[in-house]
Order: sequence, then structure tokens, then C-alpha cells
Amino acid sequence: MISPKVLLTGFTPFGGDKINPSWLAVRQVAEARPTEVRAVEIPTVFATAISDLEAAIRGHRPEVVICVGLANGRPAITPERVAININDADLEDNAGEQPIDVPIVPGGPAAYFTNLPLKDSVAAMRAAGLPAKVSDTAGTFVCNNIFYGLMHLIATKYPGLRGGFIHVPHAPEQVPDGNGPSLSIEQIAQGVSIMVDTCLAPGANLVQPHRPQVRSTR
Amino acid sequence: MISPKVLLTGFTPFGGDKINPSWLAVRQVAEARPTEVRAVEIPTVFATAISDLEAAIRGHRPEVVICVGLANGRPAITPERVAININDADLEDNAGEQPIDVPIVPGGPAAYFTNLPLKDSVAAMRAAGLPAKVSDTAGTFVCNNIFYGLMHLIATKYPGLRGGFIHVPHAPEQVPDGNGPSLSIEQIAQGVSIMVDTCLAPGANLVQPHRPQVRSTR
Amino acid sequence: MISPKVLLTGFTPFGGDKINPSWLAVRQVAEARPTEVRAVEIPTVFATAISDLEAAIRGHRPEVVICVGLANGRPAITPERVAININDADLEDNAGEQPIDVPIVPGGPAAYFTNLPLKDSVAAMRAAGLPAKVSDTAGTFVCNNIFYGLMHLIATKYPGLRGGFIHVPHAPEQVPDGNGPSLSIEQIAQGVSIMVDTCLAPGANLVQPHRPQVRSTR
Amino acid sequence: MISPKVLLTGFTPFGGDKINPSWLAVRQVAEARPTEVRAVEIPTVFATAISDLEAAIRGHRPEVVICVGLANGRPAITPERVAININDADLEDNAGEQPIDVPIVPGGPAAYFTNLPLKDSVAAMRAAGLPAKVSDTAGTFVCNNIFYGLMHLIATKYPGLRGGFIHVPHAPEQVPDGNGPSLSIEQIAQGVSIMVDTCLAPGANLVQPHRPQVRSTR
Repeated sequence: MISPKVLLTGFTPFGGDKINPSWLAVRQVAEARPTEVRAVEIPTVFATAISDLEAAIRGHRPEVVICVGLANGRPAITPERVAININDADLEDNAGEQPIDVPIVPGGPAAYFTNLPLKDSVAAMRAAGLPAKVSDTAGTFVCNNIFYGLMHLIATKYPGLRGGFIHVPHAPEQVPDGNGPSLSIEQIAQGVSIMVDTCLAPGANLVQPHRPQVRSTR
Repeated sequence: MISPKVLLTGFTPFGGDKINPSWLAVRQVAEARPTEVRAVEIPTVFATAISDLEAAIRGHRPEVVICVGLANGRPAITPERVAININDADLEDNAGEQPIDVPIVPGGPAAYFTNLPLKDSVAAMRAAGLPAKVSDTAGTFVCNNIFYGLMHLIATKYPGLRGGFIHVPHAPEQVPDGNGPSLSIEQIAQGVSIMVDTCLAPGANLVQPHRPQVRSTR
Repeated sequence: MISPKVLLTGFTPFGGDKINPSWLAVRQVAEARPTEVRAVEIPTVFATAISDLEAAIRGHRPEVVICVGLANGRPAITPERVAININDADLEDNAGEQPIDVPIVPGGPAAYFTNLPLKDSVAAMRAAGLPAKVSDTAGTFVCNNIFYGLMHLIATKYPGLRGGFIHVPHAPEQVPDGNGPSLSIEQIAQGVSIMVDTCLAPGANLVQPHRPQVRSTR
Repeated sequence: MISPKVLLTGFTPFGGDKINPSWLAVRQVAEARPTEVRAVEIPTVFATAISDLEAAIRGHRPEVVICVGLANGRPAITPERVAININDADLEDNAGEQPIDVPIVPGGPAAYFTNLPLKDSVAAMRAAGLPAKVSDTAGTFVCNNIFYGLMHLIATKYPGLRGGFIHVPHAPEQVPDGNGPSLSIEQIAQGVSIMVDTCLAPGANLVQPHRPQVRSTR
């Protein structure tokens, strides 16, 4: 069996939701690209998310891992820049736990930057007509937890792996009262698939997610 | 030739936009339901919008007219409750005019309520998983202008006609920076089509858009 | 006893709130300007708000009435342009009633425009450094109810009276979680007082709240 | 001369603004508490902000440093949790520079957490009726730059010092069009002063800004 190049993860519904667009979208991408992509659904549980992720990494041996999660209230697809070493939940996870200001990895670094091509991915999504934006915070719930865990695994055990995280909006059916933004599962899946393309492109800027420069008018 | 039952209108792009999702969506509905629905594109111009609308009414002799327009920043499909007798533009229309506090119909009533089934339409959109909400203001730009003109035509010249207005969100490609909400053209078209169904349903509550009641806990 | 020139009304707290900034602000204005201004607190009750207002008008015989109410989520002081003839509550009033799509005055006009100097008031508030904006909807709760009732009283029984409505933001203490906008009671009171000044100014544009004009680039 | 216990910094106006509420507020706090607090205005310039800060630290020898800056669009006073090692400007600073994805300290840690009592400060602000919230991102403009620089100075050269950052809303006069949230300079100053009190309180939780715990319903 040949390993897929890309592992995508999505989360189970949480906080009373009936669906989680992150899982529905990554499943759709994996079904459309079966040779390159595998998708795994991860329970929204602090205690097990990172070990579930590592099990999937060991099982599928991907080159790239992109974890995906739902961000309440965001109108765009937002690849995340940085994961921070703290769990600070304002609601319970699916195991009934609500950690407050607990390090994810005691003694670990305060943060990790993604090593995926962040801005190239956003530019490609926008070129396809999708609302997209770099985000500077993945929050402090299970999403940030698995993102930090992924980057810590890369830093300590899987040095060749590249990894990152995308936060996505609600699906339209999750905001039927019309009071918040949403994006269709198809569009979310399209955005995730575009980030996969960007990561797999020959010459993709993989080691360094940013291309430092200074614009000056002086 | 048999008259279509429903006339939909959408607007041309304005304010620097390259597309107007209102027109793209109503055209899609008309193409999908050719025997029942006609769609007409109306230039976003105060001076001509109402006469363009009346020409389309005379040409197609519909039973129901639903005008559709873009509402900057709204996250949901919002059928409008009321049109008010004022033009007060905060940007120029496509003819370079910017009326400030000018009545649409001098001496006309301050406002008209729609006579389409407002809440039943919103309920049906929500049942289909679309973000939808009744709106209490259509603004004071060309959207409100055509809506007021439509209801004034019904009140003064086309007594059997039923009419209303729907404001719709930006398409995703119109907010590529990710800073605002959007909805796909397909979903907007689906919402408009659902409102058409609701208006055409046998027994639709057409004369009275609201069903008065008082809930009380006393 | 000399009649005050201006009657201000504010509402009692509702929907679980402990304070209502509309009352706290108008009381502050009345205390600061005792010869010109009276303030009356109106219970947030559909069934009695308009009769309470009329009793205050008969008791104080003002030249100008400005009703003030709280608008959830608005960041600015927003004088209202138009009141519409419908009660449509999405929560119960303080008497436990929740009217749904019931006319305020059966057979009354669909709407009334304010006859206070709307844009001059907003311009004066902005000149004082306050966030202010004309609003095109007063909603369909008790605020719109009293505003419509006021304008209907003027149209039918008090022809010399001038009247309008201002929606104001939450006070900071009402949004301690930091998730929504607010404005201090002092600043809300300052904004209301500026609107009083604008209405009392010699030559104030009182009959016609708007000054029609058309800007054109052609 | 006795050293003040607390150094506050605010920024000069930028991006076309005429005032910066961060400076107006910290100056007000320093004037009200002259024996304990000094305030310094820092030009909004990437190249010099951190060296300006270190000069002020050397000059005043404080025990606590709180830098303050403006956050466009935020409705609350938001003490920041974490500073990240990147400059990524979406507009030019006051020297005409716009660094894109440049590390603040090449080779420095990805991030630093504040060592000020974050949640106790927010709780005290809320108890005083102010809108307040912990923020998980200080952005990637000069605000995050000086915050990272402060924490790096503490980590490398001033081990006894404690430091943090507060983002504050616009002043009302900065959003006269009413389209965004604001807070008065007085209330911003009150919030900053409350954070100073919280940091200086005997037994303040200074080394560890968070008190780790896990709430569980299992």
C-alpha cells in the first residue's frame, strides 16, 4: 500500500452542535482525492486529541498534516500562523473537561509557528474567489491543542513532517437565525483542497512559511 | 405565450463591484424554472429603476414580483418587511447621482409593508439549512427605492399583484480579504427559489404577510 | 409653573438587565437642565407605553418630545428616522407579553417619519467627538412602539408638537465580558443633550427633518 | 529620587489618526498617580520602539512595565496573553516601513507569555463595570513588536522585571461615523489603573499569570 501524501483531520461536533464542518469538509476532500489524501475524524477531547493525531500519523505516514477545526463567528477560511502552549477552555470538551490555563506540554516552548506555506495558500484561495485570511490566534481550546501537539511532534519526533492548521467558518445550516457568517461545506472543502495543492506544489516554500521582506517608502 | 407566474429582478454591479450576486442568483433561478420564473436585470440607477421595473411588469404580467438586491455586510438572506418613502444615498448610483433625503413619491405614504409571506419564507429557508432572517430596513439606496416603487405600483395600478424584496449577502469572491460574511450564489439562488415556492404554495398567506398573535406568560 | 420645553423619556430595564442606560442618561440630562428639560421613566410594556407617554405630554406640555431606548449591539448614538406600524417582539416585555405581527394602531399609516432635525443632530454629536449615526430602523419592540405612538399622537392630537426617538448603546457595565460595544452614560447623556440643543436652536429645521438635495457628478 | 513602581507606555498616533487613546490614557493615569507611575510616549516605529522602551526602563527602573496600544475594532480593554516573534505589517509605521514576516529577534523564541496577573486584572476591571477580556493575539504590528521586545528584555537582561501589554479600543471621537465600538479615555485610563493596582497588590500572582486547574463534570 502506498502512503498518501497528505493527512487531514477534522473534529467531531461539540458544544451542542449537530455537525462539525471541519470533518465534513476534509472527508469531502479525501473522497475527491483518494490517492493523495486521507481524512481522520478526531474527537473534540483535550486528553486524547494529540495521541489520536499521532496514531493517524503513524498509520498513514504522510508528508504533510493539516488539521482543520471550526472557529465560531469567523467569516473566512483562516490558516493559522502560530500555536501556543496553553489550554484555556471556556466550555467543556466532549469528555466534560474544561482545563483552565494548563500548559499543553509542561516545559515545552511557548509557541510554534506552522511550517506550511501560509500566505501562498491564502493567495491561492482568494484567487479562486474564496474568503481567506491569515489568522494570528488559533484560540486556546482543542483546536490550538492539536495544532501545538502537531508542531511539537514535528519538532521532537518527526523532523521531515510539515504541518499546520486551518480554522473554518460555520456551515450555513449552523446559523439558521441569520445572525452570523457562514460558508458552504463545498467551499470550505475547496479551500482546504487548495491548501493541499499549495503544499504539494514543486518548489513550495515549505521550510519557511514566510518570505521576510521590508517594504519601505523612504 | 403563457405568462410566468413570478418576476424576479436583480441589480447591475455598483460601487466598484465587478458582480452583483442579486442578478447572478435570480438569473440562476429563472434558468432552472423557465416556465414559472422570469428574471430581469435592472441598472442600479435611482432615476430609472422603478420605470424599468414597471416595463418588466407590463411585459411579463406576473402574479408575484420579488426584487432582489445586495446588502453589504449582512450574513443572511433577509426578506424585507417595509419600504420607506425616501432616497438618501451614501454613495453615487451608476448614473453618478446621489440623492439626499428626497422623497421617492412626493406626497406618497411614508411606507408600505410587503404583501408576501415573510415569515413563512424565512422558516422555509431555515428548514433548508440556509441562514435567513426578516429585516426591518431595506436602507435608503436604490434597493429601497425599487421596493417602495413596486409597492406603490401595486397600491395604485396593479391591485392584484403581490410584491416584496430580498436583500442577499456578498458572494464569497467579493470579500476575498476574509473580513466580511458571504454566501455562495447557489445558496442565494436556493433561498430565492424557496421564497418563490412559498409565495406560489396553495393557501399561501398572501394578502396578510403576518399572522398577528400575542404570546403571553401571564 | 412654567412648562419645560423638552420632555425626555427613558425605559425601565428589561430582558434580565439590571439597568437601562436610556433612563439613566435622560435623568442626567434633566438634572443638569432643570428649567428646560423633564425626564420620565416609562415601563417597558407594550400595553401601556403609549398611554404613559401621553400622560406625560399632558402633564408637562412640552414643545419637543424625545423618547430614548436601548439598542442591543449598536456602537453609536442613533437618532431614528422612521417608526413603523407593527409590534413584533422576539422577547417578552416587562408584563410578560410578546405580540407577534400586531399593528400598533389598527388602520393607522404604515409609518411616520420623525419631525426632528435628524442630520443636524448627528452632525452636532460628531462635532463633539461622539459616535453618532442616523438609523433607518427602530426595530419592532417597545421602542418602535412608543416612537410610532408619539408620531401618531402628533399627527392626530398634538399638531404643534415635534417628536423623535434616539437608540443608545449599552453602558460598559452591561457588557463586562467585552464581547460587544458600549458607551458611558455620561457620553450618552451628552449626545441626548446635544440633540435637545439642536432642536431648540433658533431657526432649527423643525418641520422638515431632511433637506432634500441631489449631488451629481454628471 | 525614588523610582516609580510602574512604567506605562503609550504610542503616538498612526495610520492617519490624530490621537492615540493609549497615550492619552496612560498619561492620565501617570498624572493621577505621580509617585507610583511614570508614562512614556513611544513613536509607532518598528525600528526604534524596543530601544525606546529599554531607554525608559533604564531611566525609570520600574518593577512593572505595562505597554498599551490601540486595537482597531475591539469593544473592550484586552490585556494580552502572548507576544509572538514576527513583524508582519499591513500598513506602514510612522517611519514609512512595512516589514513582512520578519522575526523581531532572529533566533529568539517563537513567543513569550506575559508574567502579569492577566485574569485577576480582567476580573477587577469587570467588577468596576468596564468591558474587559483576555486576548490571545496582540497582532503583528508595532504593538506586538514592543510586547515581544519587553518580554525578551525581561528574559535576557532584567530578570526581576514583570511585564505585559494591554490593547484598548478607539476613543469615541475616532469613530464619529458610528460604525465601530469605542470607549472613553477616562474609562480606558480607569482600566489601566486597575491593572496597575492588581499588579501591585500584596500577594499578587506575579510569577505565574495563570492558575492552572481543570474543571470537570465527570
